[in-house]
Amino acid sequence: MPVHSAQIRVHTEGDGDIIDITRGIEEVVETSGVEDGIVNVFVSHSTAAITLIEYETGGVQDLKELMDLLVPPNATYHHNEMQGDTNAHAHLQAAIVGPSETVPVKNGRVQTGTWQQFVLCDFDDHPRERSVMVQVLS
Amino acid sequence: MPVHSAQIRVHTEGDGDIIDITRGIEEVVETSGVEDGIVNVFVSHSTAAITLIEYETGGVQDLKELMDLLVPPNATYHHNEMQGDTNAHAHLQAAIVGPSETVPVKNGRVQTGTWQQFVLCDFDDHPRERSVMVQVLS
Amino acid sequence: MPVHSAQIRVHTEGDGDIIDITRGIEEVVETSGVEDGIVNVFVSHSTAAITLIEYETGGVQDLKELMDLLVPPNATYHHNEMQGDTNAHAHLQAAIVGPSETVPVKNGRVQTGTWQQFVLCDFDDHPRERSVMVQVLS
Repeated sequence: MPVHSAQIRVHTEGDGDIIDITRGIEEVVETSGVEDGIVNVFVSHSTAAITLIEYETGGVQDLKELMDLLVPPNATYHHNEMQGDTNAHAHLQAAIVGPSETVPVKNGRVQTGTWQQFVLCDFDDHPRERSVMVQVLS
Repeated sequence: MPVHSAQIRVHTEGDGDIIDITRGIEEVVETSGVEDGIVNVFVSHSTAAITLIEYETGGVQDLKELMDLLVPPNATYHHNEMQGDTNAHAHLQAAIVGPSETVPVKNGRVQTGTWQQFVLCDFDDHPRERSVMVQVLS
Repeated sequence: MPVHSAQIRVHTEGDGDIIDITRGIEEVVETSGVEDGIVNVFVSHSTAAITLIEYETGGVQDLKELMDLLVPPNATYHHNEMQGDTNAHAHLQAAIVGPSETVPVKNGRVQTGTWQQFVLCDFDDHPRERSVMVQVLS
């Protein structure tokens, strides 16, 4: 069984930027020719995360605000004090949301719902170039 | 390598209803005949989530209450204001818990622990019919 | 396609102990000889979780403190009252972080970033012996 993999490059503004990467993932699955299997989507950065949401302006803003409410950027963190860093909240937000999602592929289509988009969340505190890995197994 | 897939239909009461779907998943794995591999469990709805907990009345109620404490249903959300909707909290709760889990299969058995059940969490604010996808790869 | 699986045994101190298990996972992938595929890492206990973080003293302490802030060990929980138990917070923290992560393998290497380590989080309220399952598919 061949494994099909690709990378999606994404420019983000950081600070909780949430970017719809669904179309890129669908293209990798289409190119793979896989009919039945799974697609694993993974971001290899400790201050970014992958999840699925309804990609709509209000909900996207809600998620960004919620993460900053639960894990405030301006609180005091050991990571910032010990490393002379400013993005401890980004590491924590990323650990809670998580760096990967795995979704079934059936009849050549990713089995996400109509109101369910793959998003890259960039919690880091400045713009970044990110690489998202997409692996299709069957 | 064949891929075995099935859907489990679940009626939920919404409002944080948490339903044990372990038996359905075990049946799909047994039917697949797969000895060693993984099982991917995915819900294709943006207001529902999949996780694993000890399915016991107290803990189930605790999880429901915790999600409403962290993401209150009655707070003000952009999604509700912009879409004329009432379930923004459900979208956010679902994004945090996440729509899928992937678990090893070994010797024909899903490798969950004794106190670890697969659950569908329905955070939407009314009863729903949900479809959970189960994909077994080996 | 063969499936390669192994278990990593970990002693933890509990109480939010966070342990770097990256090297063990890399060794399983190396031993498997798999060039391209995925690695699924799963903990079969309802009071423990798997995630990825930058493993560094400050950040590890931050994550431990954050989980106890979001889900306080000393709050009142139905699970504790009904089961005569003391670790309801551990079940809830584990359900939010989640018991598994799935990461791509490419050219024989787990595709985690430089600042991204696999960790076992043990939220239970006493020391435990844990077993982490590692499954490599290609």
